[in-house]
Amino acid sequence: MEKKYVYSFEEGNREMKAILGGKGANLAEMSGLGIRVPPGFTVTTEVCDIYHQNNKNYPSEVKEQISHQLRELENKMGKKLGEANDPLLVSVRSGAAASMPGMMDTILNLGLNDQSVEGLAQKSNNPRFAWDSYRRFIQMFGEVVMEIKGSEFEEILEKVKDTVGVQSDTDLTAGHLEAIVKRYRAKIIELKGRDFPQDPMEQLQLSIDAVFNSWNNYRAIRYREINNIKGLVGTAVNIQAMVFGNLNENSGTGVCFTRNPSTGENKFYGEYLMNAQGEDVVAGIRTPQPISALAEQNKAIYDELVAICDQVEKHYQDMQDMEFTIQGGKLFILQARNGKRTAAATVKIAVDLVKEGVLTKAEALMKVQPEQLDQLLHKQLDLIAKAKAEVIATGLPASPGAAVGQVVFTAAEAYKKTQQGLDVVLVRVETSPEDIDGMHSAKGILTARGGMTSHAAVVARGLGTCCIAGCADIQIDEKGRKFTLKESGLVVKEGDFITLDGGDGQVYLGKLNTQEPELSGDFGTIMNWSDEIRELKIRTNADTPQDAKVARKFGAEGIGLCRTEHMFFEGDRIKAVREMILASDVEGRQKALAKLLPYQKQDFIGLFKTMEGYPVTIRLLDPPLHEFLPITEKDIYDLAREMEVDAGTLKAKISDLHEFNPMLGHRGCRLAITYPEIYDMQVRAIIEAAIEVAKECPTCGRSSQVAPEIMIPLVGNSKEFSILKQRTVEIAKAIIKSSGLDLPYKIGTMIEVPRAAVTADQIAEEAEFFSFGTNDLTQMGCGFSRDDAGKFLKEYVAKGIYDRDPFEVLDQEGVGELIRIAVEKGRKVRSDLKIGICGEHGGEPSSVEFCHGQGFDYVSCSPFRVPIARLAAAQAVIRERKQ
Amino acid sequence: MEKKYVYSFEEGNREMKAILGGKGANLAEMSGLGIRVPPGFTVTTEVCDIYHQNNKNYPSEVKEQISHQLRELENKMGKKLGEANDPLLVSVRSGAAASMPGMMDTILNLGLNDQSVEGLAQKSNNPRFAWDSYRRFIQMFGEVVMEIKGSEFEEILEKVKDTVGVQSDTDLTAGHLEAIVKRYRAKIIELKGRDFPQDPMEQLQLSIDAVFNSWNNYRAIRYREINNIKGLVGTAVNIQAMVFGNLNENSGTGVCFTRNPSTGENKFYGEYLMNAQGEDVVAGIRTPQPISALAEQNKAIYDELVAICDQVEKHYQDMQDMEFTIQGGKLFILQARNGKRTAAATVKIAVDLVKEGVLTKAEALMKVQPEQLDQLLHKQLDLIAKAKAEVIATGLPASPGAAVGQVVFTAAEAYKKTQQGLDVVLVRVETSPEDIDGMHSAKGILTARGGMTSHAAVVARGLGTCCIAGCADIQIDEKGRKFTLKESGLVVKEGDFITLDGGDGQVYLGKLNTQEPELSGDFGTIMNWSDEIRELKIRTNADTPQDAKVARKFGAEGIGLCRTEHMFFEGDRIKAVREMILASDVEGRQKALAKLLPYQKQDFIGLFKTMEGYPVTIRLLDPPLHEFLPITEKDIYDLAREMEVDAGTLKAKISDLHEFNPMLGHRGCRLAITYPEIYDMQVRAIIEAAIEVAKECPTCGRSSQVAPEIMIPLVGNSKEFSILKQRTVEIAKAIIKSSGLDLPYKIGTMIEVPRAAVTADQIAEEAEFFSFGTNDLTQMGCGFSRDDAGKFLKEYVAKGIYDRDPFEVLDQEGVGELIRIAVEKGRKVRSDLKIGICGEHGGEPSSVEFCHGQGFDYVSCSPFRVPIARLAAAQAVIRERKQ
Repeated sequence: MEKKYVYSFEEGNREMKAILGGKGANLAEMSGLGIRVPPGFTVTTEVCDIYHQNNKNYPSEVKEQISHQLRELENKMGKKLGEANDPLLVSVRSGAAASMPGMMDTILNLGLNDQSVEGLAQKSNNPRFAWDSYRRFIQMFGEVVMEIKGSEFEEILEKVKDTVGVQSDTDLTAGHLEAIVKRYRAKIIELKGRDFPQDPMEQLQLSIDAVFNSWNNYRAIRYREINNIKGLVGTAVNIQAMVFGNLNENSGTGVCFTRNPSTGENKFYGEYLMNAQGEDVVAGIRTPQPISALAEQNKAIYDELVAICDQVEKHYQDMQDMEFTIQGGKLFILQARNGKRTAAATVKIAVDLVKEGVLTKAEALMKVQPEQLDQLLHKQLDLIAKAKAEVIATGLPASPGAAVGQVVFTAAEAYKKTQQGLDVVLVRVETSPEDIDGMHSAKGILTARGGMTSHAAVVARGLGTCCIAGCADIQIDEKGRKFTLKESGLVVKEGDFITLDGGDGQVYLGKLNTQEPELSGDFGTIMNWSDEIRELKIRTNADTPQDAKVARKFGAEGIGLCRTEHMFFEGDRIKAVREMILASDVEGRQKALAKLLPYQKQDFIGLFKTMEGYPVTIRLLDPPLHEFLPITEKDIYDLAREMEVDAGTLKAKISDLHEFNPMLGHRGCRLAITYPEIYDMQVRAIIEAAIEVAKECPTCGRSSQVAPEIMIPLVGNSKEFSILKQRTVEIAKAIIKSSGLDLPYKIGTMIEVPRAAVTADQIAEEAEFFSFGTNDLTQMGCGFSRDDAGKFLKEYVAKGIYDRDPFEVLDQEGVGELIRIAVEKGRKVRSDLKIGICGEHGGEPSSVEFCHGQGFDYVSCSPFRVPIARLAAAQAVIRERKQ
Repeated sequence: MEKKYVYSFEEGNREMKAILGGKGANLAEMSGLGIRVPPGFTVTTEVCDIYHQNNKNYPSEVKEQISHQLRELENKMGKKLGEANDPLLVSVRSGAAASMPGMMDTILNLGLNDQSVEGLAQKSNNPRFAWDSYRRFIQMFGEVVMEIKGSEFEEILEKVKDTVGVQSDTDLTAGHLEAIVKRYRAKIIELKGRDFPQDPMEQLQLSIDAVFNSWNNYRAIRYREINNIKGLVGTAVNIQAMVFGNLNENSGTGVCFTRNPSTGENKFYGEYLMNAQGEDVVAGIRTPQPISALAEQNKAIYDELVAICDQVEKHYQDMQDMEFTIQGGKLFILQARNGKRTAAATVKIAVDLVKEGVLTKAEALMKVQPEQLDQLLHKQLDLIAKAKAEVIATGLPASPGAAVGQVVFTAAEAYKKTQQGLDVVLVRVETSPEDIDGMHSAKGILTARGGMTSHAAVVARGLGTCCIAGCADIQIDEKGRKFTLKESGLVVKEGDFITLDGGDGQVYLGKLNTQEPELSGDFGTIMNWSDEIRELKIRTNADTPQDAKVARKFGAEGIGLCRTEHMFFEGDRIKAVREMILASDVEGRQKALAKLLPYQKQDFIGLFKTMEGYPVTIRLLDPPLHEFLPITEKDIYDLAREMEVDAGTLKAKISDLHEFNPMLGHRGCRLAITYPEIYDMQVRAIIEAAIEVAKECPTCGRSSQVAPEIMIPLVGNSKEFSILKQRTVEIAKAIIKSSGLDLPYKIGTMIEVPRAAVTADQIAEEAEFFSFGTNDLTQMGCGFSRDDAGKFLKEYVAKGIYDRDPFEVLDQEGVGELIRIAVEKGRKVRSDLKIGICGEHGGEPSSVEFCHGQGFDYVSCSPFRVPIARLAAAQAVIRERKQ
């Protein structure tokens, strides 16, 4: 049988998106439902592929099949393309398998020529309509097919309007329009040396080719790159009979949503205009009427529309966004698709559809994009305020939410002003662990350097604080306490108000209105359903009781990562830390560490109490020691004075600690191999804190559950782990023994060094749990420095070398292979090995799905991503069951 | 049956080293050969283990077995321990499975007490001998068992000598010695509150325990650490009847070698002293006689000794180092072991033993340690000169050989002085690629920082230039053109002569005599035999035709790694490189690259011609671009002036290129993804050069074979490779086509990113060869920065976390696992995938064996390690066949 390249709408259905494109499949589906759709046919995406592979040609069968379908269409419509008396007009539209709105070309009113325009005038009894249609067609054809600049036509149009003395196109008469058509055609001949083609078949052929060509125009390619649309062979082309909402007063056009797309309320919603075309609704020249008005104006049509909406919504089991046209009192549906909606509406509609019996819970969960939930958890900018305000700079949307505050340039100033009750936005070139207090205080953080996974971004996401990172548009003068917009030269001084939108990375001058998040009942319902279905536990990365509280509110079932180093920077502690680093022997270090012990113990007591018996995984000290020492000359001198050491000695120490590749340096458990007393202190603090929480209070008699998990970072070799485990066990045993309690605790490790992954069997001999540190595993596995790779990773993603930035979305193929190896080797040796993830990926939906697929016990993510992970984990189960 | 803890010498053999220790097994073996060895027995190493595991106790069976063996010994000797008339005396000696000379304790003359000393005096008819033996025994026992400082005894001895008025111990009479014994015992009571034990069984018991204790003394532990002795459970203890070379004039003692240990010549060699003990020979009070004198003095004994030597050498199939004692005209052999020898002797003896029919070629090859060959390839310091000269500083022995020259502090100065015909030693804090010319010129290189795999070390080894790295003893003042010895304050100025020994890292002031290497006929024989047996091809890492020539002389069968970046630093080229880096667009970069093209082409022509058809693997540009830009403020200003750019612009570019972790940064193929024009130029240069070499010369009509292999570095993702391969093929195809020749070439990649190893199946779809870059694979796989890890890796090795520094010896367990995965995945997809290694490990014997075991096609190493790799590859085959 001959291969089928062209399908009438009756022949397709929604499963055929890959070859018919989204629009074509949809039109076919609706035709199949018996809904009145203007008839037509679709040239498949495969033809587009053949066209581009064969030097812009395709086999004669394609042409024959198009002719055949066209004849069928003519029969259906009782009109013929190009016929003088009552011509068939068609639209030619692109439509790929993925939505690429406005990126490719469209031609309307095809089939008009010098004869048929007259026929249309007569038949419609509306010569102005006919000539305006012809004018529009020639202009569109001229631009799209003949590649003439739109301005050439606009100039002619304007000139005529001037001459005639009218303001609006609508004031032009049929005669004026006829004159314009003549001038258009003269211009085409002047510019292209040939006339606009009168033969409708030629018009059609050229238009189809033009649509195919538009698949590879610059903006379409860029759109696919930006939206990460891959694996498509091309666009389909839809040829459809034209219907006209501007034919007469008994005609009209409109758009409607089956439910309210802002709130999700189950109320028919939309607007329409009589005697108008779609573009008139969009152009805003006339104000459209609310859809409810149609009920009064034409009850029959309204009822028919409502009935169709119900039918289509039920059919697609989702809220629909529909376009319709009324031509001479007859309703046509031009398009129906799942409607875009706010996050709140998404959640409400999903829940309502279950209540209405349309969806199962599992189906409803699949309707919500996990990432959307983020919107519901953060303060948002008021959309109207946002629309009116001027964007002064744009950076990376590093942590969602909105922030309004006065600009400050140092963490100390941020802290001070906040103590005074002021709202501040902290503006830094980049942040460092020393800035932690200021970052905690600020409403928002703006950095000039750093990527989505820079320190500022990671910490801000953890805090749920709005953050824009890597904003290259600004030039910061910290000393001068101001920043300058590179382009405009605008200067923003300390104390000036700015507003950040962490959702899109836009920075505004002044104060914009914000809206508080509302965790509505429907949100809770979605979460509960997720919890019923998911198999992964969801933990959080939290360093403080405050973080932990937020995370528990969001449903965290434990702490998967507590980074103890952050605790080392607070208040006076940093002094003791530095004393420890500068000590010349074990005794000196132990003395300094003894000062830190009570602080650490209090930290852990707070965490254990907040988590009420949920497991708390505490990572022992990880960063290289130089991170705790100052960098600038001035800070070094200040510290030397404070510590009463010679500045030269201090400098020598700093230079001693300097590393060429700190990422691969003396950090993590390597520190503890060299200075075991550091971990000794931390283990003591953990176990003593756990005992204190676990034991009965002498006053009130209450005791609490506690489940500490001690995590040794950066293990690359099983012997590192066994040496440190032995010390840990000895210390813990002694403390527990003297407490008289029975305290269960676990000792495990992060798998973040590739070597650890491939020798996981040896490590699992002793480790009770693995937590994949996928940030570092990505750095070492792919050989990318997170701090530097921003320079080239964008290009890597654009070129398709990686599908997505591997620091944002787990690289399942490469880093994932290391994980697969480690899980297999680890579980072979210890079948009940507890396995989790605590990298940034723990809150990224596709990565959560991967973790589920690998049999992980839990994922851990920042508090604000816990709901996302809960839903993603449920979706992973649902998808798995489907297969 | 009862477990056997104690073996008489008759019961053991040389296979039982693990439980009898080296000495015990050896004495047993000789006993078994019927050689007259003083009889005795051995307490096994297992007892040492039990002793330490059980709080310094062992089961009563052990004591019973010792008593039993002692009775047997007494029967054999016809004497009894502690007997008054004719006492049996024994020695108690340590002896682990690995040689640890002098590290553990020994006790001689055990069995003497107040009664038996008289019996010994009578029986030997030599009271002085008896009392001196008793004195020595008490002193040894006091020090070793009772833990009294030797100085306490020495003081008494000196005081008596003073009182008596004699200079030498030998001038003391029996009476004097008896008085000393009394004082010794009084001192013991004074210090320890108890007397020296008179009961010989107690003496024996305590001495055995003391030997066990010495297994864990500080120096023994350190020795094992330093010499990487692992996996041993403890030391054995040998109890052996004493024989005395100082009994009378018909007694004597000596050491001999079955061949000359310096030259390897097959000539009996040694020295002896009559009426003397072993320590007298060592002490140097009397001058020993050459062994040949014994033939005249006592022909029968001499002949017996020669016969035994022959027998033992044949038995062990190796040159022996033996100790003997003549007691009252009767010859006893105390020890025989494979003799230490120079590298030259090793080679000669191995070859001679084959000629003599003692060894097969394969056996002979196993007698040579590959590392030893290094000595034969480099200039060496004259040993006598070395012994006399003062070491002023010590660093890491980074590249072997010797260098004598005037100190210079910059590469430029090194180059200049060398052009003037002077010999220089380049002294730097550390070297960078910019120093390459100076490093080429210098006779030797001394750096204050950096490890065994620092830039200086790697480059120097490549050049075969002597280098001492990481010499922390010196403080360099580059501006002041001097360095200072930190300890002594000694100042060495530019122009002063120093001498380096790259073999042991020692630095000498002044000029020391050196000896040129001689690649003797025996060396060549060993190499030929290796080549007959080995299966791996041996290639070299070479960047210049000079390197390549050296390597070919040493037997290299191709270039496994040509680092093109080194070529970028020479002369004017660096200017064009910088112009390329500073260019703001593709055109600018292409213009600059066009200047480099002819240079690169010439580089490759030179290499191809030198290698005469052997494969030449050329790695495209690898380092990050910032390595080509200056660092210091001054250099930046100079360059800005030279390049006629604004210093600010230049600084901004440098700051733009700065990376936090350059190891994981924008380098390798990532550069080419961003700036494909760089590799385009290099590919063009390679292919054009190959064509030029391959084509017939119009004048002479000759053409040469050429086999280029283009290697793309730092691939982590198969898509990087396929993108770059496609460009490479397009360029190559065009050039080859227009040449009209048929030029075969290969395109492959380095496997040095862990991700590449675990996705090797995908990469092998397109790559024709893999070359494991084990330096970087170790860095990323283990998460160690080569530049920084020196700080903690020593401790890692000391603690047994890694057996050896993984940058020196391939970490087979971890990095090796990545390699195994990659080889398996790669070969699964492409069974004829060519696999090699080009990291530093390619010339390290155990790593070469690993590569052979994994089915590699070749290893590639620096030119001076080619002979080592040839032998190691042969040994790998021999060991494999044995199994």
